[in-house]
Amino acid sequence: MNPDAPLVHLNGTFLPRSEARVSVDDRGFVFGDGVYEVFRSVRGRMYAPDAHMDRLREGLATLRIRIPESIADGTLLEVARRLLSENGHDEGEATIYLQVTRGSAPRTHHFPDPDIPPTVYLSTSPFEPRHDLQDSGGACILHPDRRWARAHIKTVNLLPNILAKQAAHDADTFEAILVRDGMVLEGSSTNVFGVMDGVVRTYPAANYILRGVTRDRVLALARDRGVPCLEEGLAVEELAALDELFLTGTTTDVLPVSRVDGQVIGEGTPGPITRLLQDAFREDLYGRPDPEAD
Amino acid sequence: MNPDAPLVHLNGTFLPRSEARVSVDDRGFVFGDGVYEVFRSVRGRMYAPDAHMDRLREGLATLRIRIPESIADGTLLEVARRLLSENGHDEGEATIYLQVTRGSAPRTHHFPDPDIPPTVYLSTSPFEPRHDLQDSGGACILHPDRRWARAHIKTVNLLPNILAKQAAHDADTFEAILVRDGMVLEGSSTNVFGVMDGVVRTYPAANYILRGVTRDRVLALARDRGVPCLEEGLAVEELAALDELFLTGTTTDVLPVSRVDGQVIGEGTPGPITRLLQDAFREDLYGRPDPEAD
Repeated sequence: MNPDAPLVHLNGTFLPRSEARVSVDDRGFVFGDGVYEVFRSVRGRMYAPDAHMDRLREGLATLRIRIPESIADGTLLEVARRLLSENGHDEGEATIYLQVTRGSAPRTHHFPDPDIPPTVYLSTSPFEPRHDLQDSGGACILHPDRRWARAHIKTVNLLPNILAKQAAHDADTFEAILVRDGMVLEGSSTNVFGVMDGVVRTYPAANYILRGVTRDRVLALARDRGVPCLEEGLAVEELAALDELFLTGTTTDVLPVSRVDGQVIGEGTPGPITRLLQDAFREDLYGRPDPEAD
Repeated sequence: MNPDAPLVHLNGTFLPRSEARVSVDDRGFVFGDGVYEVFRSVRGRMYAPDAHMDRLREGLATLRIRIPESIADGTLLEVARRLLSENGHDEGEATIYLQVTRGSAPRTHHFPDPDIPPTVYLSTSPFEPRHDLQDSGGACILHPDRRWARAHIKTVNLLPNILAKQAAHDADTFEAILVRDGMVLEGSSTNVFGVMDGVVRTYPAANYILRGVTRDRVLALARDRGVPCLEEGLAVEELAALDELFLTGTTTDVLPVSRVDGQVIGEGTPGPITRLLQDAFREDLYGRPDPEAD
């Protein structure tokens, strides 16, 4: 296949990405009325596909969007694998993007009545992890969390996240850490973990954060290795006292934070617990500790 | 032209609505990264077009979306008039929908760099005002305001509004009145006004409400007629003591509220100040008090 014209899958049809279009009446376009997932794949093997599919189904159910059959029975994962292979994205690392919107109908705020078929869009892209920042640590800024009160649903209403990420970008940093009522919640597209006196802490998964697949996996890996973990928020004032701080995410893996708003965190270099969890996560993702060893 | 295949205008081209499509990489589709306006038109005459265009330009500037030339110089209004005419929507009442997104680019949370051309979409639809509810009054429910902290920008991140409107729909009511910290803010797609002891009150235009074109016009009309107006929020507890309650909006006009969560407001019938402002607004919109008189 032509690497400049990868195939995508839209409403049951394979077609070149450049030809994949949705109606101007799609509720994704006019309302952001949909949910999405980004999956990671290494040499054609998808990482934690069931966790992503479970979260997607849960989001669709919460928003009362009809669950497409291929998502209900998981056969869409076969389509994803075929896309990876057709696009040659099964040779190295890749991401898979899956979006489902409520579908296309004349514009009304309330749901279309009768019900309409949802829009289902799937694409793959080659991916290169930020091993540089994973090694050196990245800088972050603090940013007010202005999102809505149901940030646990992975919707495409992402404008607050975009503006926060852009603020980080403008400040030549990697990520914006969102703060609500004085508490550190998560990053604009990552979860945030602090380490203090050997204990790992991250904000509890309720309505104010997106419960990351990598977040949950890292918590499990830490507990497996006897590292005590608390799902308890960090106050902004506690950042200065942290020994380590790191981010997790599907395209972030485990990424140490060296500075926040210019202030050095801990020693300013990736700490031992961050390194331990980074190695544990890499082993889980790649099946061995060091992806660059071969 | 064929009424079943109205023309729309997308990125500088007139085409049938059924053929109007945007890329799956449009940031409107994947992020809700855009703003919109709904204009009202009566027999081809657009109502308050400058107020809508000013708000759109302000929203684009706030979101740092490049302002398309036809919006900077207002020539897009000519395109809107042509659409109304080509579609035969200049014979009666119509709405004009205008949406601008940041454009189409490979998916990154931060803004595309270098800058890309925005997507500009314009359509018209025949419109029938709810004269029935304007006469009888409509029922509403109270609903928690779960929106983000910048509701004053008219973005297409509308999922919280959709879920609130659907809750109203499920309860067989017209609108969901959004409540934040015990205060009545606005409806899911309307502004809310209370009348107590002859004084009109509505939430002040800051970051928590969408400052409606109709809202501002109704405030001006009220003041012109010597009706005292306060831009000061109503507490939920004050609803029971109100003499009158009404909604305003581009497709709502001035619509009395008869009940909230089943509780009768005032006499349960449209009150004298609501009627006064309804007449004043109709005169402004139609050029005469009663649209059904001819």
